[in-house]
This record gives sequence, structure tokens and C-alpha cells, in this order.
Amino acid sequence: METTLTDAEVYQGNCPTREILNRIADKWTTLLIGLLAQTESRRFNELRRAIGGISQKMLTQTLRDMERDGLVRRKMYAEIPPRVEYSLTPLGKTLCEPLDALRKWAQDHLQEVRESQEAFDKRAP
Amino acid sequence: METTLTDAEVYQGNCPTREILNRIADKWTTLLIGLLAQTESRRFNELRRAIGGISQKMLTQTLRDMERDGLVRRKMYAEIPPRVEYSLTPLGKTLCEPLDALRKWAQDHLQEVRESQEAFDKRAP
Repeated sequence: METTLTDAEVYQGNCPTREILNRIADKWTTLLIGLLAQTESRRFNELRRAIGGISQKMLTQTLRDMERDGLVRRKMYAEIPPRVEYSLTPLGKTLCEPLDALRKWAQDHLQEVRESQEAFDKRAP
Repeated sequence: METTLTDAEVYQGNCPTREILNRIADKWTTLLIGLLAQTESRRFNELRRAIGGISQKMLTQTLRDMERDGLVRRKMYAEIPPRVEYSLTPLGKTLCEPLDALRKWAQDHLQEVRESQEAFDKRAP
């Protein structure tokens, strides 16, 4: 099915594209896509260890949202204790390139942003 | 100055690059960069009208953060009533391309994401 949305529609409060943009333009989603792109699949606790500072609840919710959006595949193995693995779907893999570009921007311009922040804080009331 | 960060460092909770990624991977920032890229400069109320659903407080805060990060320039004209205009800095302009790619992804894959959401909701407990 062809998408007929134009750029302008992202700016409407009720635009469905914006709802999706909100979710992919999320720090945890960005980090998880990058992490899952590195390997075939990852277990929940591996992901949690790999992302400093994420809570169990936030990781659970983010992975669930990503599964619902079709970005992540969740596979449960009937073992004791049960093993659950997460991997990127083909759709999730198409997000790697734009999100990599964003991460790269943040890394490349870190120094410039910091200098601006320092200058701003000096002149701020 | 050369940046020596590696991708891996984004995954540390205290990584400065992640702090910046958090801010640029924000829905309002994404929408504002796209909007400011279209014209030379915009007034506060023009921006507010152009972005459905953003509150005055949130727009003020987001523009202030973007100014502090060096993405946006705020220029005040000594008129009555005072006129304030916002424009992208050269640094802010470098963000257009990666953020455009992200918005385009959301538009191109809207239908696919929605179908996945519907399928998920049908099988969810």
C-alpha cells in the first residue's frame, strides 16, 4: 500500500506518523536498535547489562513497544528457566541506517555542543 | 578537536554523547529542526501554531535547550511589543539530514508498523 502522507502532516497533533516518530526518536529505542544490530539475537539480561542506566521496567516496556511496532522479534525457548531472545525484524533493520547517522552526529558534534552549553550557561541569567 | 568516542561509549549511563543523543532524539526537537529548516527564521507564535499539540511551556523549554546546545539562534528585536525570532545555526543545519531520514522512515513505514500493531493487539493477552 502506498503512503500518501506528506511531510507537513507530521506537524499535526493527531498525525499517525508523528506517533511512530515519537517512538523511534526515543533514546532507549535508538540504543536498543544499535545493540541488536550487532548480533543475531540477545537475551533480556544481556540487553539490560549492555545499556547502562536502564531499569528493568523501562527495558520491558520498550522491548514490548518495539515488538508491537514490528521492529523486534521476541522468541521464547521452552527451557527451565525459560529463555527469551530478542532480535531485529527485517523492518527493524531498516531503522539502523538513519539511527546510526543520528548517533554518529551526536558523537561527532559532542565537543561543539558542550562549548555552546558552557557559553550559554555563562551568559544565562 | 578530534572526537575519540567509540560507539560503545554511547551505551554507558554516564556517556556525554548519550545525553546529547537523548536531546536530539526528541520528538519536539525533531519537528522543530524540520520546521526551522524550511525558512530563514520563525517567530515563537508561528512555531507554536505550526506544531499541533505543543504547549507554550514545552516549546519555550525545547527552544531554550536547543539554543543552549547551539542548534538554534534566538534573536530579539527591540520593538514594542518585542519581536523574537528563531533560526537554525550552522550546527543545527547539520542535523537536518539525519533527522529528515528518520521522519521519512516513519512516513514510509507507517502502514507496516500499523499492521504489526494490529496483529500484536489481537494476540496479546
